[in-house]
Amino acid sequence: MQSNNLSRRTLVTMAAAGAGSYIGSAPATAEPTLMRNANLLRSWRDGEAKSGILDFLHATTDPASSQFVPEQQRIAVFDNDGTLWTEQPIVPEIAFALARLHELAPRHPEWATTEPYSVALSGDMRVISQLGVPDLLKIVVATQAGTTLEEFRKFVETWLKTAQHPRFHKPYEKLAYQPMLDILRVFSDNRFKCFIVSAGGCEFMRAWTETVYHLPLEQIIGSTLVLEYVQQNGHANLLQTQKVATFTDGPQKAGAIASTIGQRPIIAFGNSDGDYEMLQYVTSGNGRCLGVLIHHDDAEREYAYDRTGHVGKLDRALNDAKRNGWQLVSMKNDWTKVHDI
Amino acid sequence: MQSNNLSRRTLVTMAAAGAGSYIGSAPATAEPTLMRNANLLRSWRDGEAKSGILDFLHATTDPASSQFVPEQQRIAVFDNDGTLWTEQPIVPEIAFALARLHELAPRHPEWATTEPYSVALSGDMRVISQLGVPDLLKIVVATQAGTTLEEFRKFVETWLKTAQHPRFHKPYEKLAYQPMLDILRVFSDNRFKCFIVSAGGCEFMRAWTETVYHLPLEQIIGSTLVLEYVQQNGHANLLQTQKVATFTDGPQKAGAIASTIGQRPIIAFGNSDGDYEMLQYVTSGNGRCLGVLIHHDDAEREYAYDRTGHVGKLDRALNDAKRNGWQLVSMKNDWTKVHDI
Repeated sequence: MQSNNLSRRTLVTMAAAGAGSYIGSAPATAEPTLMRNANLLRSWRDGEAKSGILDFLHATTDPASSQFVPEQQRIAVFDNDGTLWTEQPIVPEIAFALARLHELAPRHPEWATTEPYSVALSGDMRVISQLGVPDLLKIVVATQAGTTLEEFRKFVETWLKTAQHPRFHKPYEKLAYQPMLDILRVFSDNRFKCFIVSAGGCEFMRAWTETVYHLPLEQIIGSTLVLEYVQQNGHANLLQTQKVATFTDGPQKAGAIASTIGQRPIIAFGNSDGDYEMLQYVTSGNGRCLGVLIHHDDAEREYAYDRTGHVGKLDRALNDAKRNGWQLVSMKNDWTKVHDI
Repeated sequence: MQSNNLSRRTLVTMAAAGAGSYIGSAPATAEPTLMRNANLLRSWRDGEAKSGILDFLHATTDPASSQFVPEQQRIAVFDNDGTLWTEQPIVPEIAFALARLHELAPRHPEWATTEPYSVALSGDMRVISQLGVPDLLKIVVATQAGTTLEEFRKFVETWLKTAQHPRFHKPYEKLAYQPMLDILRVFSDNRFKCFIVSAGGCEFMRAWTETVYHLPLEQIIGSTLVLEYVQQNGHANLLQTQKVATFTDGPQKAGAIASTIGQRPIIAFGNSDGDYEMLQYVTSGNGRCLGVLIHHDDAEREYAYDRTGHVGKLDRALNDAKRNGWQLVSMKNDWTKVHDI
């Protein structure tokens, strides 16, 4: 029987044989894979991080390599906030939730006197930025519950059209890291299936990840609410409830990967202690595997933070990176640019 | 940026332009798509069911069609037991769980006197076949808990090598329906992403679905247990616990589809009332969509059952099929063969 994978392999073979290169946007002249991949990582400076990632890529995709990995096992996982786009001074999803909370507030007079909603509505970012995960979750849930997935994504899309980052004064979608967009592209081109695995809301991400990361919806894994099956005007729909179904942070990231993807990925990218278990799970595999930690050490072009603070704390993972064989990436030294703005 | 989807589209275009046909196993001569798809459904007799499915396929994949659906929205969902393979007289997963329970019993003397384990171990199939879902779930959980996904799948693989269906005396994998294997192939070849959505255990299925259905692991959705993150000899692993995380039957099938796949599929295949909401959700979409119900009316070649019984009850969905516009498939009349044995 013909399979998806077989079809795809056949296509690659046919297209490659016919055209010299199967990467649509690659130079028209035939070019060795190694060189092509290196060229595509053009937002990366030469150094240990870049060569570590390219070594891994070649070892796992070169049919002549002893560490060659068949396509169906080429799974790469990426944290989102702070790994693929800027998460400071406030995680974009929280910026959205605050804006949405203001829109919904007239229908919820009780929020004016109920924490954490009253704090969130105060506009005092110094206080808001100190809210812990349980309070932030309450706010996020309040702005999602009662909507279908389609309705909710529309709210996010609408917000993205006008919202701007407070420092860069650009739409949030422009704050994806160009070097990581390069990585997504090179790995996808080399037949890796790339999944986002974030503690952030799955539906918040799905509103824009097809456009920004060019990943299909089912390759986005994130926190979800329990869905209620309802009939609306003779049409079946699913409404988000107030009950959290999954909160995919820390060890739950590894659990969500195993349940959803069904196999251990061979490469993982993260930037905080919330990614520790994901990297550890991935780098506990038997074959060639790689864990990569993005270190925010570039206050000039983005932000410098690690061991302290509420957002993107990187402490335990930084301590253990060397012992665990994880590749540290210095945003300052390893990236020629951070954003494409 | 280059995307997965773009790459695939580029490949299809390139390969099609270069070779006349991009289906690896299609005849070497160029052949109209319509004819090719019809030929590939060779286990289907001409009739309303076959032409309904082919009409849908052409309307959604022919670029000239007003109902054309872009590749990234071509999602098909399939129930498993009774839709893709034989589920009588006992669902294969339960046959496996009973066998595994016997293997584990020496370590659990308490099972000899505790229901439902004692019943399951009695070997009296007449009584066992009357066990309800809660009892069956307990048995399934008892045979999965404490194992990693990899270990558990190995047990299933080992069992499959020797287990035989009590009537057909063939390995269970041989009891996949040839007409449905044809459907999986034709839809995959036409760039549909096919997902299995079963109330059955996700990990039980993943042990054999790559081989039998040629679908990647992440396209298998089923019931799951909560996973516990553990360190074993310095390696990170995930152990299945006794706690059910998802039981994907009825409305939960629709919920799992929305959460995992992230969009409403456009075609769904089922065979029982447990698939009602999945079909209803899929056929509540705005564009062209199709719900298909496999009706077990072939006692000679397989089994005849619908409104009564414990396994694969088809009652409400049968009543409403016509009103809902769902395509009924008569196994007896619409299929030239049931199994390829």
